[in-house]
Amino acid sequence: MATSVQQQLHPYYPKTLELPGFAEATMTQSFILATFGSFSVILVFAVWAFAGTFGRVSKLDKSLMCWFAFCGFTHIVLEGYFAFDANFYTYSVPNFLAEVWKEYSKADSRYVGRDSAVVCVEGLTAVLVGPGCLLAVYAIGAKTTYRHTLQLVISVAQLYGDLVYFITVILDGEEISSPEPVYFWFYFIFMNGIWIVMPLCIGIHSWLAISKAFESKKKKK
Amino acid sequence: MATSVQQQLHPYYPKTLELPGFAEATMTQSFILATFGSFSVILVFAVWAFAGTFGRVSKLDKSLMCWFAFCGFTHIVLEGYFAFDANFYTYSVPNFLAEVWKEYSKADSRYVGRDSAVVCVEGLTAVLVGPGCLLAVYAIGAKTTYRHTLQLVISVAQLYGDLVYFITVILDGEEISSPEPVYFWFYFIFMNGIWIVMPLCIGIHSWLAISKAFESKKKKK
Repeated sequence: MATSVQQQLHPYYPKTLELPGFAEATMTQSFILATFGSFSVILVFAVWAFAGTFGRVSKLDKSLMCWFAFCGFTHIVLEGYFAFDANFYTYSVPNFLAEVWKEYSKADSRYVGRDSAVVCVEGLTAVLVGPGCLLAVYAIGAKTTYRHTLQLVISVAQLYGDLVYFITVILDGEEISSPEPVYFWFYFIFMNGIWIVMPLCIGIHSWLAISKAFESKKKKK
Repeated sequence: MATSVQQQLHPYYPKTLELPGFAEATMTQSFILATFGSFSVILVFAVWAFAGTFGRVSKLDKSLMCWFAFCGFTHIVLEGYFAFDANFYTYSVPNFLAEVWKEYSKADSRYVGRDSAVVCVEGLTAVLVGPGCLLAVYAIGAKTTYRHTLQLVISVAQLYGDLVYFITVILDGEEISSPEPVYFWFYFIFMNGIWIVMPLCIGIHSWLAISKAFESKKKKK
Protein backbone atom coordinates (compact mmCIF):
# COMPACT_ATOMS: atom_id res chain seq x y z
CA MET A 1 0.00 0.00 0.00
CA ALA A 2 2.81 2.38 0.91
CA THR A 3 4.43 1.62 -2.47
CA SER A 4 1.25 2.34 -4.37
CA VAL A 5 0.91 5.73 -2.60
CA GLN A 6 4.61 6.43 -3.37
CA GLN A 7 3.96 5.64 -7.03
CA GLN A 8 1.27 8.34 -7.30
CA LEU A 9 3.54 11.12 -6.05
CA HIS A 10 5.16 12.16 -9.32
CA PRO A 11 4.26 12.18 -13.03
CA TYR A 12 7.44 10.43 -14.25
CA TYR A 13 8.19 7.01 -15.73
CA PRO A 14 9.09 4.42 -14.58
CA LYS A 15 6.47 4.76 -11.86
CA THR A 16 8.81 2.96 -9.44
CA LEU A 17 11.27 5.89 -9.55
CA GLU A 18 11.69 7.20 -6.02
CA LEU A 19 11.80 10.99 -5.70
CA PRO A 20 11.74 11.97 -2.04
CA GLY A 21 10.62 15.57 -1.56
CA PHE A 22 9.10 15.88 -5.04
CA ALA A 23 7.02 19.09 -5.30
CA GLU A 24 4.31 19.35 -7.96
CA ALA A 25 4.68 21.71 -10.92
CA THR A 26 3.75 25.33 -10.19
CA MET A 27 3.60 26.34 -13.87
CA THR A 28 1.60 24.88 -16.76
CA GLN A 29 3.12 23.28 -19.86
CA SER A 30 1.76 26.04 -22.12
CA PHE A 31 3.20 28.79 -19.88
CA ILE A 32 6.64 27.13 -19.89
CA LEU A 33 6.68 26.54 -23.65
CA ALA A 34 5.34 30.03 -24.43
CA THR A 35 7.93 31.70 -22.16
CA PHE A 36 10.84 29.67 -23.55
CA GLY A 37 9.58 30.18 -27.12
CA SER A 38 9.04 33.95 -26.69
CA PHE A 39 12.42 34.46 -25.09
CA SER A 40 14.11 32.51 -27.90
CA VAL A 41 12.28 34.52 -30.60
CA ILE A 42 13.18 37.86 -28.93
CA LEU A 43 16.82 36.73 -28.62
CA VAL A 44 16.98 35.70 -32.28
CA PHE A 45 15.46 39.03 -33.42
CA ALA A 46 17.84 40.99 -31.19
CA VAL A 47 20.90 39.17 -32.53
CA TRP A 48 19.67 39.57 -36.13
CA ALA A 49 19.26 43.33 -35.56
CA PHE A 50 22.55 43.68 -33.66
CA ALA A 51 24.58 41.61 -36.17
CA GLY A 52 24.77 44.65 -38.47
CA THR A 53 26.89 46.59 -35.96
CA PHE A 54 29.87 44.44 -36.98
CA GLY A 55 29.69 45.73 -40.54
CA ARG A 56 28.36 43.75 -43.52
CA VAL A 57 27.28 40.28 -42.48
CA SER A 58 25.67 37.86 -44.95
CA LYS A 59 22.23 36.44 -44.22
CA LEU A 60 23.72 32.98 -43.70
CA ASP A 61 26.19 34.36 -41.15
CA LYS A 62 23.42 36.33 -39.42
CA SER A 63 21.43 33.08 -39.15
CA LEU A 64 24.46 31.30 -37.71
CA MET A 65 24.94 34.10 -35.16
CA CYS A 66 21.28 33.69 -34.14
CA TRP A 67 21.70 29.92 -33.86
CA PHE A 68 24.80 30.17 -31.69
CA ALA A 69 23.23 32.88 -29.50
CA PHE A 70 20.20 30.60 -29.00
CA CYS A 71 22.54 27.66 -28.22
CA GLY A 72 24.63 29.75 -25.83
CA PHE A 73 21.53 30.86 -23.92
CA THR A 74 20.04 27.34 -23.82
CA HIS A 75 23.33 25.67 -22.86
CA ILE A 76 24.41 28.12 -20.17
CA VAL A 77 21.13 29.17 -18.57
CA LEU A 78 18.82 26.18 -19.00
CA GLU A 79 21.25 23.27 -19.11
CA GLY A 80 23.65 24.96 -16.67
CA TYR A 81 20.85 25.34 -14.15
CA PHE A 82 19.99 21.64 -14.44
CA ALA A 83 23.60 20.48 -14.20
CA PHE A 84 24.27 22.37 -10.99
CA ASP A 85 20.97 22.20 -9.12
CA ALA A 86 20.19 18.60 -8.25
CA ASN A 87 17.17 19.54 -6.12
CA PHE A 88 15.12 21.35 -8.75
CA TYR A 89 12.25 18.87 -8.46
CA THR A 90 11.74 19.58 -4.75
CA TYR A 91 10.94 23.31 -5.10
CA SER A 92 7.37 24.34 -4.42
CA VAL A 93 8.06 28.10 -4.74
CA PRO A 94 7.70 29.12 -8.43
CA ASN A 95 11.07 29.01 -10.19
CA PHE A 96 10.98 29.05 -13.98
CA LEU A 97 14.16 27.05 -14.54
CA ALA A 98 13.14 24.37 -12.05
CA GLU A 99 9.75 24.17 -13.77
CA VAL A 100 11.38 23.71 -17.18
CA TRP A 101 13.19 20.62 -15.92
CA LYS A 102 10.21 19.26 -13.98
CA GLU A 103 8.31 19.49 -17.28
CA TYR A 104 11.11 18.09 -19.47
CA SER A 105 11.66 15.18 -17.09
CA LYS A 106 8.28 13.86 -18.26
CA ALA A 107 10.04 13.09 -21.54
CA ASP A 108 13.20 11.81 -19.87
CA SER A 109 13.04 10.87 -16.22
CA ARG A 110 16.84 10.53 -16.13
CA TYR A 111 16.77 14.28 -15.42
CA VAL A 112 14.91 13.97 -12.12
CA GLY A 113 16.70 10.66 -11.54
CA ARG A 114 20.08 12.42 -11.87
CA ASP A 115 21.53 9.89 -14.32
CA SER A 116 25.29 10.44 -14.39
CA ALA A 117 25.64 10.32 -18.20
CA VAL A 118 22.94 12.99 -18.59
CA VAL A 119 24.36 15.22 -15.82
CA CYS A 120 27.84 14.86 -17.32
CA VAL A 121 26.78 15.75 -20.88
CA GLU A 122 24.66 18.67 -19.64
CA GLY A 123 27.53 19.91 -17.45
CA LEU A 124 30.05 19.78 -20.30
CA THR A 125 27.55 21.48 -22.60
CA ALA A 126 26.89 24.26 -20.08
CA VAL A 127 30.49 24.88 -19.03
CA LEU A 128 32.44 24.36 -22.27
CA VAL A 129 30.08 24.43 -25.25
CA GLY A 130 27.82 27.29 -24.03
CA PRO A 131 30.58 29.92 -23.65
CA GLY A 132 32.05 28.62 -26.94
CA CYS A 133 28.73 29.42 -28.63
CA LEU A 134 28.75 33.01 -27.34
CA LEU A 135 32.31 33.39 -28.59
CA ALA A 136 31.13 32.02 -31.97
CA VAL A 137 28.51 34.81 -32.22
CA TYR A 138 31.36 37.32 -31.94
CA ALA A 139 33.76 35.27 -34.10
CA ILE A 140 31.30 35.13 -36.99
CA GLY A 141 30.32 38.81 -36.75
CA ALA A 142 33.91 40.00 -36.43
CA LYS A 143 35.05 37.68 -39.24
CA THR A 144 37.90 36.24 -37.16
CA THR A 145 40.27 33.67 -38.68
CA TYR A 146 39.11 31.06 -36.14
CA ARG A 147 35.37 31.27 -36.73
CA HIS A 148 35.10 28.03 -38.76
CA THR A 149 37.44 26.21 -36.41
CA LEU A 150 35.29 27.22 -33.45
CA GLN A 151 32.06 26.34 -35.28
CA LEU A 152 33.49 22.92 -36.06
CA VAL A 153 34.67 22.26 -32.49
CA ILE A 154 31.27 23.30 -31.08
CA SER A 155 29.40 21.18 -33.61
CA VAL A 156 31.46 18.06 -32.89
CA ALA A 157 30.95 18.54 -29.14
CA GLN A 158 27.18 19.07 -29.55
CA LEU A 159 26.91 16.05 -31.81
CA TYR A 160 28.95 13.83 -29.50
CA GLY A 161 26.94 14.91 -26.46
CA ASP A 162 23.64 14.27 -28.21
CA LEU A 163 24.80 10.85 -29.42
CA VAL A 164 25.75 9.91 -25.85
CA TYR A 165 22.34 11.20 -24.76
CA PHE A 166 20.43 9.02 -27.24
CA ILE A 167 22.65 5.91 -27.22
CA THR A 168 22.68 5.50 -23.42
CA VAL A 169 18.84 5.42 -23.48
CA ILE A 170 18.95 2.55 -25.99
CA LEU A 171 21.66 0.70 -24.02
CA ASP A 172 19.82 1.07 -20.70
CA GLY A 173 16.59 -0.04 -22.35
CA GLU A 174 14.50 1.51 -19.59
CA GLU A 175 11.17 3.29 -19.87
CA ILE A 176 11.95 6.97 -19.26
CA SER A 177 9.23 8.80 -21.15
CA SER A 178 5.58 9.44 -20.35
CA PRO A 179 3.25 7.67 -22.79
CA GLU A 180 1.74 10.87 -24.29
CA PRO A 181 3.25 11.36 -27.79
CA VAL A 182 4.19 15.02 -27.10
CA TYR A 183 6.80 13.94 -24.55
CA PHE A 184 8.50 11.29 -26.59
CA TRP A 185 8.16 12.75 -30.09
CA PHE A 186 8.28 16.50 -29.51
CA TYR A 187 10.45 16.88 -26.41
CA PHE A 188 12.70 13.83 -26.62
CA ILE A 189 13.09 13.18 -30.36
CA PHE A 190 12.43 16.57 -32.00
CA MET A 191 14.01 18.96 -29.47
CA ASN A 192 17.15 16.83 -29.17
CA GLY A 193 17.13 15.93 -32.85
CA ILE A 194 17.73 19.63 -33.62
CA TRP A 195 21.18 19.22 -32.05
CA ILE A 196 21.94 16.31 -34.37
CA VAL A 197 20.82 18.00 -37.60
CA MET A 198 22.17 21.53 -37.01
CA PRO A 199 25.70 20.54 -35.85
CA LEU A 200 25.93 18.12 -38.78
CA CYS A 201 25.04 20.87 -41.28
CA ILE A 202 27.25 23.51 -39.62
CA GLY A 203 30.10 21.03 -39.18
CA ILE A 204 30.06 20.13 -42.89
CA HIS A 205 29.79 23.84 -43.83
CA SER A 206 32.85 24.70 -41.74
CA TRP A 207 34.77 21.60 -42.88
CA LEU A 208 34.34 22.71 -46.51
CA ALA A 209 35.27 26.32 -45.69
CA ILE A 210 38.49 25.18 -44.01
CA SER A 211 39.39 22.90 -46.93
CA LYS A 212 38.87 25.87 -49.27
CA ALA A 213 41.20 28.02 -47.17
CA PHE A 214 43.93 25.36 -47.40
CA GLU A 215 43.38 25.00 -51.16
CA SER A 216 43.78 28.74 -51.55
CA LYS A 217 46.97 28.61 -49.43
CA LYS A 218 48.31 25.75 -51.60
CA LYS A 219 47.61 27.67 -54.82
CA LYS A 220 49.33 30.75 -53.38
CA LYS A 221 52.50 28.71 -52.94
CA MET B 1 27.14 -17.75 3.07
CA ALA B 2 26.05 -17.90 -0.56
CA THR B 3 26.75 -14.18 -0.86
CA SER B 4 30.21 -14.53 0.57
CA VAL B 5 31.02 -17.32 -1.91
CA GLN B 6 29.59 -15.13 -4.73
CA GLN B 7 31.85 -12.28 -3.59
CA GLN B 8 34.99 -14.41 -4.03
CA LEU B 9 34.24 -15.31 -7.63
CA HIS B 10 35.83 -12.32 -9.39
CA PRO B 11 38.70 -9.89 -8.76
CA TYR B 12 36.67 -6.70 -9.35
CA TYR B 13 35.45 -3.88 -7.11
CA PRO B 14 32.91 -3.35 -5.67
CA LYS B 15 32.95 -6.92 -4.37
CA THR B 16 29.14 -6.97 -4.45
CA LEU B 17 29.17 -6.77 -8.28
CA GLU B 18 27.38 -9.82 -9.65
CA LEU B 19 28.98 -11.45 -12.68
CA PRO B 20 27.23 -14.71 -13.49
CA GLY B 21 29.41 -16.99 -15.59
CA PHE B 22 32.66 -15.15 -14.85
CA ALA B 23 35.67 -17.16 -16.04
CA GLU B 24 39.08 -16.52 -14.50
CA ALA B 25 41.88 -14.91 -16.51
CA THR B 26 43.79 -17.31 -18.79
CA MET B 27 46.69 -14.88 -19.39
CA THR B 28 48.95 -13.05 -16.95
CA GLN B 29 49.17 -9.28 -16.60
CA SER B 30 52.76 -9.22 -17.85
CA PHE B 31 51.88 -11.29 -20.94
CA ILE B 32 48.98 -8.95 -21.79
CA LEU B 33 50.99 -5.76 -21.28
CA ALA B 34 54.02 -7.13 -23.15
CA THR B 35 51.89 -8.25 -26.10
CA PHE B 36 49.99 -4.97 -26.33
CA GLY B 37 53.21 -2.99 -25.87
CA SER B 38 55.13 -4.99 -28.49
CA PHE B 39 52.36 -4.78 -31.04
CA SER B 40 52.12 -1.01 -30.50
CA VAL B 41 55.89 -0.56 -30.88
CA ILE B 42 55.97 -2.66 -34.08
CA LEU B 43 53.03 -0.68 -35.47
CA VAL B 44 54.69 2.64 -34.70
CA PHE B 45 57.97 1.53 -36.34
CA ALA B 46 56.12 0.23 -39.40
CA VAL B 47 54.19 3.48 -39.86
CA TRP B 48 57.37 5.54 -39.36
CA ALA B 49 59.13 3.48 -42.03
CA PHE B 50 56.15 3.48 -44.39
CA ALA B 51 55.43 7.25 -44.00
CA GLY B 52 58.26 8.01 -46.44
CA THR B 53 56.41 6.36 -49.34
CA PHE B 54 54.14 9.44 -49.50
CA GLY B 55 57.10 11.65 -50.32
CA ARG B 56 58.79 14.07 -47.91
CA VAL B 57 57.06 14.02 -44.53
CA SER B 58 58.38 16.06 -41.58
CA LYS B 59 59.29 14.33 -38.33
CA LEU B 60 56.35 15.96 -36.57
CA ASP B 61 53.96 14.67 -39.23
CA LYS B 62 55.53 11.20 -39.08
CA SER B 63 54.97 11.22 -35.31
CA LEU B 64 51.36 12.26 -35.83
CA MET B 65 50.87 9.45 -38.36
CA CYS B 66 52.24 7.00 -35.78
CA TRP B 67 49.94 8.40 -33.11
CA PHE B 68 46.83 8.14 -35.29
CA ALA B 69 47.77 4.63 -36.44
CA PHE B 70 48.16 3.59 -32.79
CA CYS B 71 44.81 5.25 -31.96
CA GLY B 72 43.09 3.63 -34.94
CA PHE B 73 44.33 0.19 -33.92
CA THR B 74 43.42 0.69 -30.25
CA HIS B 75 40.00 2.20 -31.00
CA ILE B 76 38.89 -0.28 -33.65
CA VAL B 77 40.40 -3.55 -32.44
CA LEU B 78 40.58 -3.25 -28.64
CA GLU B 79 37.73 -0.86 -27.90
CA GLY B 80 35.60 -2.20 -30.75
CA TYR B 81 35.92 -5.71 -29.36
CA PHE B 82 34.78 -4.52 -25.94
CA ALA B 83 31.86 -2.49 -27.28
CA PHE B 84 30.40 -5.38 -29.23
CA ASP B 85 31.16 -8.42 -27.07
CA ALA B 86 29.29 -8.13 -23.79
CA ASN B 87 30.25 -11.65 -22.69
CA PHE B 88 34.04 -11.28 -22.77
CA TYR B 89 34.37 -12.02 -19.05
CA THR B 90 32.72 -15.43 -19.37
CA TYR B 91 35.27 -16.95 -21.78
CA SER B 92 37.52 -19.65 -20.39
CA VAL B 93 39.16 -20.46 -23.75
CA PRO B 94 42.19 -18.15 -24.23
CA ASN B 95 41.19 -15.06 -26.22
CA PHE B 96 43.62 -12.15 -26.12
CA LEU B 97 41.06 -9.37 -26.54
CA ALA B 98 38.79 -10.82 -23.85
CA GLU B 99 41.81 -11.09 -21.54
CA VAL B 100 42.72 -7.43 -22.13
CA TRP B 101 39.30 -6.36 -20.87
CA LYS B 102 39.22 -8.86 -18.00
CA GLU B 103 42.52 -7.30 -16.93
CA TYR B 104 41.51 -3.68 -17.53
CA SER B 105 38.26 -4.16 -15.64
CA LYS B 106 40.37 -4.44 -12.48
CA ALA B 107 40.96 -0.71 -12.93
CA ASP B 108 37.38 0.05 -13.91
CA SER B 109 34.74 -2.54 -13.15
CA ARG B 110 32.21 -0.59 -15.26
CA TYR B 111 33.68 -2.61 -18.15
CA VAL B 112 32.60 -5.99 -16.81
CA GLY B 113 29.51 -4.29 -15.33
CA ARG B 114 28.55 -3.04 -18.81
CA ASP B 115 27.93 0.55 -17.70
CA SER B 116 25.97 2.28 -20.47
CA ALA B 117 28.08 5.47 -20.51
CA VAL B 118 31.28 3.43 -20.91
CA VAL B 119 29.80 1.13 -23.59
CA CYS B 120 28.44 4.18 -25.45
CA VAL B 121 31.75 6.09 -25.42
CA GLU B 122 33.71 2.98 -26.42
CA GLY B 123 31.23 2.22 -29.21
CA LEU B 124 31.42 5.76 -30.63
CA THR B 125 35.20 5.66 -30.35
CA ALA B 126 35.41 2.33 -32.16
CA VAL B 127 32.89 3.04 -34.91
CA LEU B 128 33.47 6.75 -35.66
CA VAL B 129 36.80 7.89 -34.19
CA GLY B 130 38.81 4.75 -35.04
CA PRO B 131 38.20 4.83 -38.82
CA GLY B 132 38.72 8.61 -38.65
CA CYS B 133 42.19 7.98 -37.18
CA LEU B 134 43.15 5.63 -40.02
CA LEU B 135 41.96 8.24 -42.50
CA ALA B 136 44.10 10.80 -40.65
CA VAL B 137 47.22 8.66 -41.20
CA TYR B 138 46.56 8.90 -44.94
CA ALA B 139 45.45 12.55 -44.80
CA ILE B 140 48.67 13.65 -43.10
CA GLY B 141 50.93 11.60 -45.36
CA ALA B 142 49.17 12.67 -48.55
CA LYS B 143 49.05 16.34 -47.38
CA THR B 144 45.32 16.65 -48.07
CA THR B 145 43.55 19.97 -47.51
CA TYR B 146 41.38 18.40 -44.80
CA ARG B 147 44.12 16.93 -42.60
CA HIS B 148 43.95 19.59 -39.87
CA THR B 149 40.16 19.60 -39.96
CA LEU B 150 40.13 15.84 -39.46
CA GLN B 151 42.79 16.00 -36.73
CA LEU B 152 40.70 18.61 -34.91
CA VAL B 153 37.44 16.65 -35.21
CA ILE B 154 39.14 13.47 -33.94
CA SER B 155 40.79 15.33 -31.07
CA VAL B 156 37.54 16.96 -29.91
CA ALA B 157 35.77 13.59 -30.05
CA GLN B 158 38.56 11.83 -28.11
CA LEU B 159 38.63 14.61 -25.52
CA TYR B 160 34.85 14.64 -25.12
CA GLY B 161 34.72 10.86 -24.77
CA ASP B 162 37.48 10.84 -22.18
CA LEU B 163 35.84 13.64 -20.19
CA VAL B 164 32.56 11.67 -20.12
CA TYR B 165 34.59 8.63 -19.04
CA PHE B 166 36.20 10.44 -16.08
CA ILE B 167 33.31 12.70 -15.03
CA THR B 168 30.73 9.90 -14.82
CA VAL B 169 33.04 8.07 -12.36
CA ILE B 170 33.11 11.16 -10.13
CA LEU B 171 29.34 11.67 -10.41
CA ASP B 172 28.57 8.02 -9.63
CA GLY B 173 30.97 8.11 -6.69
CA GLU B 174 31.29 4.33 -6.67
CA GLU B 175 34.36 2.23 -5.99
CA ILE B 176 35.34 0.78 -9.35
CA SER B 177 39.09 0.20 -9.06
CA SER B 178 41.12 -2.48 -7.31
CA PRO B 179 43.15 -1.05 -4.40
CA GLU B 180 46.58 -1.83 -5.95
CA PRO B 181 48.10 1.48 -7.20
CA VAL B 182 48.92 0.01 -10.66
CA TYR B 183 45.22 -0.29 -11.50
CA PHE B 184 44.15 3.15 -10.44
CA TRP B 185 47.26 5.18 -11.28
CA PHE B 186 48.67 3.37 -14.31
CA TYR B 187 45.63 1.88 -16.03
CA PHE B 188 42.89 4.31 -15.04
CA ILE B 189 44.66 7.67 -14.70
CA PHE B 190 47.76 7.37 -16.91
CA MET B 191 46.42 5.28 -19.81
CA ASN B 192 43.28 7.40 -20.11
CA GLY B 193 45.13 10.62 -19.33
CA ILE B 194 47.08 10.12 -22.58
CA TRP B 195 43.82 10.76 -24.45
CA ILE B 196 43.35 14.05 -22.60
CA VAL B 197 46.89 15.38 -23.16
CA MET B 198 47.47 14.26 -26.77
CA PRO B 199 44.12 15.47 -28.21
CA LEU B 200 44.59 18.79 -26.41
CA CYS B 201 48.06 19.27 -27.97
CA ILE B 202 47.00 18.08 -31.43
CA GLY B 203 43.76 20.08 -31.28
CA ILE B 204 45.65 23.30 -30.49
CA HIS B 205 48.23 22.50 -33.19
CA SER B 206 45.51 22.07 -35.81
CA TRP B 207 43.51 25.07 -34.56
CA LEU B 208 46.58 27.28 -35.09
CA ALA B 209 47.32 25.76 -38.50
CA ILE B 210 43.75 26.46 -39.66
CA SER B 211 43.90 30.06 -38.38
CA LYS B 212 47.14 30.52 -40.33
CA ALA B 213 45.49 29.22 -43.51
CA PHE B 214 42.66 31.74 -43.12
CA GLU B 215 45.13 34.56 -42.44
CA SER B 216 47.01 33.64 -45.60
CA LYS B 217 43.70 33.63 -47.52
CA LYS B 218 42.81 37.08 -46.10
CA LYS B 219 46.20 38.53 -47.08
CA LYS B 220 45.79 37.07 -50.57
CA LYS B 221 42.61 39.09 -50.96
